[in-house]
Parts: sequence; C-alpha cells; structure tokens
Amino acid sequence: MIKVNRDRLLSDLRELAGIGRFKTGVDRVALSPADLEARGWLMHRMQEAGLEPHMDEVANVYGRDPDAARTLLIGSHTDTVPQGGWLDGAMGVIYALEIARAAKERGASSPIGIDVMSFQDEEGTYLAFLGSRTFCNNLTDPEIDAAKSGDVRLRSVLANVEPAANPHRLDPARHLCYLEAHIEQGPRLEQARRRIGVVTGVVGIRRFRIHSRGQADHAGTTPMSVRKDAGAALMRLAAQVAQEFPRLGSAETVWNIGRISLRPGAPNVVPNAGELVLEFRDTDPAILDALESHVRHWVDQLGSGAYAAKMEPMALIAPTPLAKALASVLAASSEALGEEPMHIPSGAGHDAMVVGRYIPAAMLFVPSIGGRSHDVTEDTEEADIVFGCEVLADAVDKLLANPDLIRRLSMAD
Amino acid sequence: MIKVNRDRLLSDLRELAGIGRFKTGVDRVALSPADLEARGWLMHRMQEAGLEPHMDEVANVYGRDPDAARTLLIGSHTDTVPQGGWLDGAMGVIYALEIARAAKERGASSPIGIDVMSFQDEEGTYLAFLGSRTFCNNLTDPEIDAAKSGDVRLRSVLANVEPAANPHRLDPARHLCYLEAHIEQGPRLEQARRRIGVVTGVVGIRRFRIHSRGQADHAGTTPMSVRKDAGAALMRLAAQVAQEFPRLGSAETVWNIGRISLRPGAPNVVPNAGELVLEFRDTDPAILDALESHVRHWVDQLGSGAYAAKMEPMALIAPTPLAKALASVLAASSEALGEEPMHIPSGAGHDAMVVGRYIPAAMLFVPSIGGRSHDVTEDTEEADIVFGCEVLADAVDKLLANPDLIRRLSMAD
Repeated sequence: MIKVNRDRLLSDLRELAGIGRFKTGVDRVALSPADLEARGWLMHRMQEAGLEPHMDEVANVYGRDPDAARTLLIGSHTDTVPQGGWLDGAMGVIYALEIARAAKERGASSPIGIDVMSFQDEEGTYLAFLGSRTFCNNLTDPEIDAAKSGDVRLRSVLANVEPAANPHRLDPARHLCYLEAHIEQGPRLEQARRRIGVVTGVVGIRRFRIHSRGQADHAGTTPMSVRKDAGAALMRLAAQVAQEFPRLGSAETVWNIGRISLRPGAPNVVPNAGELVLEFRDTDPAILDALESHVRHWVDQLGSGAYAAKMEPMALIAPTPLAKALASVLAASSEALGEEPMHIPSGAGHDAMVVGRYIPAAMLFVPSIGGRSHDVTEDTEEADIVFGCEVLADAVDKLLANPDLIRRLSMAD
Repeated sequence: MIKVNRDRLLSDLRELAGIGRFKTGVDRVALSPADLEARGWLMHRMQEAGLEPHMDEVANVYGRDPDAARTLLIGSHTDTVPQGGWLDGAMGVIYALEIARAAKERGASSPIGIDVMSFQDEEGTYLAFLGSRTFCNNLTDPEIDAAKSGDVRLRSVLANVEPAANPHRLDPARHLCYLEAHIEQGPRLEQARRRIGVVTGVVGIRRFRIHSRGQADHAGTTPMSVRKDAGAALMRLAAQVAQEFPRLGSAETVWNIGRISLRPGAPNVVPNAGELVLEFRDTDPAILDALESHVRHWVDQLGSGAYAAKMEPMALIAPTPLAKALASVLAASSEALGEEPMHIPSGAGHDAMVVGRYIPAAMLFVPSIGGRSHDVTEDTEEADIVFGCEVLADAVDKLLANPDLIRRLSMAD
C-alpha cells in the first residue's frame, strides 16, 4: 500500500503556494520569474524523492523514475492564470510528487514505476497546453513563433529557460498511461455532496465569432419598418440560442455569450454592425454538430434578410474521451475508501486532453468550494485535498499491482 | 408675393458649404474656426439684405429687421456634426435669408417684418441647443461651466467670440412666431413620394442606461442551472423590448439599443455585469409613460431573481407640440403650390423644440435622399430645395398679409 503522508502533502502544497503568492492566491503565470522559481523548487523536491529531474526547452519539469523502464505518468501543471488560485494545477503535481515519494519509501513492489510531470502554460498565457503539446510532439515551430502574451513573444521568454541537453518526450513504450488529479473548478461535487469526481471525458469546445452588418440610421427619424439594425439581429440570435439550446443539447451541454459589441455604439444611432462570441461545449461530437448546424441555420436566416451575417470559428476543439478502464480503477479506489464517486465530464480543458490522444488517460476531481477557480478565492477543504490524494494513491497501487490491467488498456476502450 | 430667387438661394447654400468643406459634406462643428468664419459670412449677407446683423456671446447670429417692431423669426443653425452634410441646419438659415431678402426687395407690404437666426451648437458638440437655449434665457451658468467636448471646455472656446454689447434675446412682444425649415433626416417623404412635410410635433426622448449584475463563472465547468449570467439577462430584456414595443407603442414610436457591453468580456467567462442603452421616442407623453413603466417592470423582474438590475435615466426630453394653426398655414401654402403635404412628427430634436416653448413655432421638412443625414452623403434634390423655400415664402406671405391670423395664434392651440 502506498501511504500518503498527509502533513508532507499539505506542507509541500503550501510551500509551493508561497512562490508567487498574491493575496490568498498565487500569481505564477507561465515563464514568469515566479513560475521558473517554482519549477526549480519542484526539481529539488523530485531529487529528494529519488526521481531524476529534467527541464525541457519550454520548462516542463519531468521527474523520471530511474528504477523502472515502464511507468505511470502522473502530473498536471504549476503555472497559473494571473491572480489565480493556489490549487489549480499545483495540487495534481504535488499529488504526483507525494505518491511517487511514498511509493519509493515503500520500496519496489512492481516492475512499473512512477514518473512525475509539471507541464508548462496549461493556462494559455502564451499558448494553451504549450507543455503537454511539446511533450507529445504536437506543436509546430510556426505556432511557437506566433505565440505571444500582449506584446511579449513566447520565443523571447523561452530564452530564459535552461533546458537539459536531451529533452524527454512522451514515449508510449515507457509511459503506460497518464493520471491527472485536479480541482473541479465547478460546483457539481459540492452541490451533490460528493468528494470524488471521476472524469468521463473532456468536453469539446466550438467557439464562433458571429458578425452582422446592417445600416446606420438616425434612431429618431428612421421608422422601425425600414431599419437594418445589426444589433437587433444579434439579439434575435441570442434569444434563439437561449430558447433552443436547452432542447437541442444534452443535460451536460453548456454555452456562453461572453462578448458582444455594436457599432458605432451611440445611443441615438441604429447599429450598422455587431459582433458576438458564442461558444458551446459537450462531450458528444454529435451534439456539438447539431448545435453548430442550428446556429449556422439561424445565421443564414439573418443573412438572407436585410442583413449580412457570417460566423467565423475561433476555436474548434474535439471532445476527448478518457480511458474507461482507467476511470473504473479510480472509481473502485474511491468506493474502497468509502466514497461513492460522481461521474462527470470536465467542462474545462486539461493536459489530460492532450496526452490522452496518445496514451490512455484518466482524471480525478476534488470539490472546489463554491465552485470557484481562476481567482484568489479558489479553495478546497483540507480533508478533501488529502482524501483525493489517498484515492489516487490507492488507484496507483492497484495499477502497479496488476500490470495486466494496464496492458489491457487501450485508447479505444 | 415674396419671390424666391432660385439661383441666389442655391448659390448662397453652395458658398456656405464651401466653408469647412469635407469631401462632399461639411465639417463645421460649433465654435470651430470654420463655424465662426461661416457666421461672419452670414452677417455680411444679412447686412447686404438690409438686416442688422448681431452676434451674441455664444455666436448666435441674428439678423434684425430694422424696419419693423413685430416680426416673424425664421432660421435654424449653421453648425454641423463632425464630417456632416451640407444641408442640415444651413438650408433653413439660407431659406430665412433669402425670404427676408426677397421680402425687402418687394418693399414693405405689412407692418410685420422678418428676423433671421442662425443658432449655435444645435448639434450638441458642447451643449445641445446652446444657441436657442441662450436666446430663450433657458440656460444656467453651471450648465455652461460644465459643458465640454472631449477635454475642451465650452468656456474656453467662447473666449474666441466677440459679441455685440447688448445681445438680443427672444422677445415675445417682437417675435410673433418661429418658423424653421429643415431636411427630414429620414426616409418617409421620399418613400411616400412627397416633397413637403409639415411637422406635427417634436418627439420626446427617454433614454436609459440599464445595468445588470450576476456572477462570473467558468463557462465550461458551471452548469447552466446555477449560472447568474448578467449578459443573458440583458438579452432577455432586449427580446422583451423587441416583442412588446410594437404592441405597446404607437405607429410612430421608435426605439433603439445602440450600445451594449458585457464584463469581463471573455468568451469563456459567464458575464458578471452588463450594460445596455435603450432609448425610445414618441410625440405622446402617455405612450412614453407606458413604455417606461413596462421597461421598469421588466428590469424589476430581472432584479428580483438571481440578478441585480437597475435603470438610470440618461435623457428625459418631453415631446414638444408645435402650433397647429401655423402648421395649417404651411400646409395650405404647400397645397396652393400643388403639393399635398405629409404630416409627420420630427424624430430628431430641433431648435424649434426650444423656441416653441415660448412662442408659437412650426417646422417644414424637405426630403432627404435615402433618408441620409449627419454624413457627407446627406443631400436633397435641387428642385426640392427650391420648392421648400417657395412653400415657406408663400406661408410667410400669408402670415404677413394677415396679421390677425398671427394674433390669434397661441401656444395652446
């Protein structure tokens, strides 16, 4: 049995939160001095735990188990959003560290070892999933060339990274599967009074910029019947979304109109142009297709009347199914420790979404107090933090004890 | 009969359009060098026409008939919006100049004379209706102190004006009534194939800033059922306006949502705050009251749920009825010249709205090509420009010939 050291786990998490501390949270955006300091600290901890720490050219920090040719890869990310919380990403990395450390303390019980990973820029300060995409060789030079944060180019900050000579990459012969624990970042577990979420898949995202063009007219002298109001057109579309999406989507479908603007933007001028951003998410590609097709139809309807209207994709991210057999192991561990898990999709993107395209991957969620995240108020009950690590450790134990189970895993299951 | 000189009318209009010319239009914002140059030019023309030109402290230009103790006041404004058209305001002033000039040429036929006016800043660069409000003693020092355009204070540009020692003010004993001709700035005359509009009244405007407050949440991880989406709340309100206003308003009611914004404005964050600007216009105060009361009810409904919502007035302008008896004279002149006039409200504000609170006032509209105004494309057929002046001259003739008619006019009629 891998015995998690509760005090050490919490103390490491708190120590990490001290690097880049901001109020009750953390500001440790990718490749900032605080981020690089945290990664240095982590490499030191890995070394102490008996792992071989390596930093690659994007400052992914990889703790390689020197005693095994095949491993479970466990981790998450230590970068944060600006003025973010202390657990998003960090918790999954410290779980991995603690479990690898506790496993070493127990002594070898399996030919399979544990590699620990902190990916870079999961939050997309420069380029979302920069670290996991680099690790999976799923990133092109032009994408890195183009990436920037405000006026600062990714290339210029990468110059501060001192990578190892031969960066480690994902190796399906070595890395049998990927496990990532994370805070839920939503209210479902808390509202259902559950302590463990087993993630069924990561939702796909379709995000569109929808434009309308009409005609600017004096809002006092132009009769309603002859206006070509580009703003009213967009609001009709928004009303259709609000009315039809609940019927067209699944119980898990979510959508958002987070931005809308009208031109010229004067109270007494009929808008001649408008733009809104609509996104929707679901784990089922068929549902995403159906929603997109309806939105296209509504936009076409707008465009066929007095308006010119078009939609332009901003993001088209396919849903990522996670490995069912691995999820079952997580669920069994939760049950074994007395907690009925909740099976939920992940509405946010995670590194598991990238890695899960190449090797079987699974995710475990712990509750977020008030569903809060990406904010200094982000928090999780201490007991829930510890319990999540114990469930993950138990699952790791089961996997190490049963190499056949891992061998049977496939991405298609 | 006052005989309008067609060529002189058009030539003066074109000469005035040359002062501050911008592309096919004019940029002659209030108190700019071009505006003051145009007012100097106008004073010169007034002098030539036998009027006594005066400039007051806001650069209203008043051409006083030295031969009469009682007059018809006729005019409009010569300031424009930035990059505006050549006729908005200017046409009404040149009509007044031409009619006063033609009347002088004919020789005295009535004890009643004609005073000509070009008001200042009708367009509100610094303070809407600055000129007519000053002329009517309807403006306070604190309002003038507060007025600015961007960072430029009205007080600082007024320092460039060289006013006459004793500025003329509205004098109901002298100024028997006010007549203003203007381009329609809308498409109604053109669409109805009419050449003369007789204005029934100037619409009132109610303009509100409507705020909503909700809660920012991750748009992927927060189930739809628990969101407090401040943006969706505003769009529901917009849908209610679009659905209910056609039923609640009159055939003349117009409304506009010209501005909307959501915060934080990110595609993947549920908006925690939103703001839109709704305005509506009608000549009937009871209709404005009914519309406002419904909007208040909808905003209260929003505010009683998950949201905080409030509405804040930005402008509350009462409708101005115009003098029916004067309008009848304009209509009769149009008919006498072979054109059935169209009776329409003015959806835009005009100086007649201010002056009409103190003395009987009437307005005549000529068609705007394509309904365009406040833009360099603003235009009116040459024949329509001339015809409008002939109709106004005929009406002036009727009024001068029938002092009893003017004496019977009252503001209440």
